[in-house]
Amino acid sequence: MGDINLRVDRLESESSIRRLVAEYCHGADKRDIDRFLSVWTPDAVWQMSADVSFRGKDAIERVVRAQWRAFAQYVHWTTNVSLVVSGDTADGECDVAVLVRLHNGRWIRSGGTYRDRYRRLDGTWFIAHRDASIGFDIDLPAEASEVPERFDSL
Amino acid sequence: MGDINLRVDRLESESSIRRLVAEYCHGADKRDIDRFLSVWTPDAVWQMSADVSFRGKDAIERVVRAQWRAFAQYVHWTTNVSLVVSGDTADGECDVAVLVRLHNGRWIRSGGTYRDRYRRLDGTWFIAHRDASIGFDIDLPAEASEVPERFDSL
Amino acid sequence: MGDINLRVDRLESESSIRRLVAEYCHGADKRDIDRFLSVWTPDAVWQMSADVSFRGKDAIERVVRAQWRAFAQYVHWTTNVSLVVSGDTADGECDVAVLVRLHNGRWIRSGGTYRDRYRRLDGTWFIAHRDASIGFDIDLPAEASEVPERFDSL
Repeated sequence: MGDINLRVDRLESESSIRRLVAEYCHGADKRDIDRFLSVWTPDAVWQMSADVSFRGKDAIERVVRAQWRAFAQYVHWTTNVSLVVSGDTADGECDVAVLVRLHNGRWIRSGGTYRDRYRRLDGTWFIAHRDASIGFDIDLPAEASEVPERFDSL
Repeated sequence: MGDINLRVDRLESESSIRRLVAEYCHGADKRDIDRFLSVWTPDAVWQMSADVSFRGKDAIERVVRAQWRAFAQYVHWTTNVSLVVSGDTADGECDVAVLVRLHNGRWIRSGGTYRDRYRRLDGTWFIAHRDASIGFDIDLPAEASEVPERFDSL
Repeated sequence: MGDINLRVDRLESESSIRRLVAEYCHGADKRDIDRFLSVWTPDAVWQMSADVSFRGKDAIERVVRAQWRAFAQYVHWTTNVSLVVSGDTADGECDVAVLVRLHNGRWIRSGGTYRDRYRRLDGTWFIAHRDASIGFDIDLPAEASEVPERFDSL
């Protein structure tokens, strides 16, 4: 069965990581910048597509603030959290149901999968890498005319 | 790392509270009154808005039964559960995707956030306070003509 | 409080079962047959309705492959996981939000509840029985003309 302290440590790590996954959403959706930034390592990477990614909290803050300007409301509901913890690193995959409300009032549904790498620094777990590049549209995506121009100026 | 019994106790508490959050939905949506009432402390408060709340199991039962009359079906899908356990009390926040089917057949989507206080009594965890006042509409809310009059007679 | 090893074992079992519930969805939705089949016991039963069920991995593989042919995309978002672990068996109930995209592009929403029995074999947890018979439609279900004929030839 292994050492009891290590077994409990692994369970505590899972608990902390599940909380990170939730706090990312609460921070993003309630537009609480401190809460949102608290989930990332200082040098975390937020990957948006195969060739677009943002590294570090300053860049991550710029991106989330641009999303907040672009959409009147942003909703992330995560599910199917599957974690593998190994010492001070962990890998995870979860699905997310996404809703955005445009400034013209239209709601748009989409979905996706987050592929994550977590890291423990000084006893606290953080998201070190979130690949948010896998997604699909359900409703018609926002057209250029429906989104403020400044969305692209990250 | 702290005492192993306390660490395991905290993890068991989290497990119990996650189950409470799920059982609330199963009780409400499967219309099983015993299951629904089993999640609350005897003097629990179910807060609906800044100035409307219901205290105690009798009041809570009246409210949920009124909801069951008002809607042909009620669906609660909770996500983003974030818990902080401290001894025999705990605080939690989770999001909820809500679907209701009106008696005329129309489905309405909404969403919200539950802010909870949990309490352990004689070794069992319960919801002591659920603030369900934070929400938003996705589809057009039910009009008065779409809901039975008795919805308001809690 | 009970023996610490047994208490930790129960928490580890819950962690493993939550992962099973997630992996079922990742396997089904990402169309990864090995991942999907890995969650089931060799003699597992996948119950579709009161009188239709499939036993064993060969039958389960035939069913999921027929679903993959029938729908251009299949999405399962599970929530409200409620588990009771007892030694090497466990019972669980969870809700699921389901989205399918037909080959004609139409998206259809439905919902349901999984009632599960899990079993531990040689230290690893599996789904032994999943009753997926409880469900409801939100949007108009797929008409015969919208689904390939081969959907029924499991």
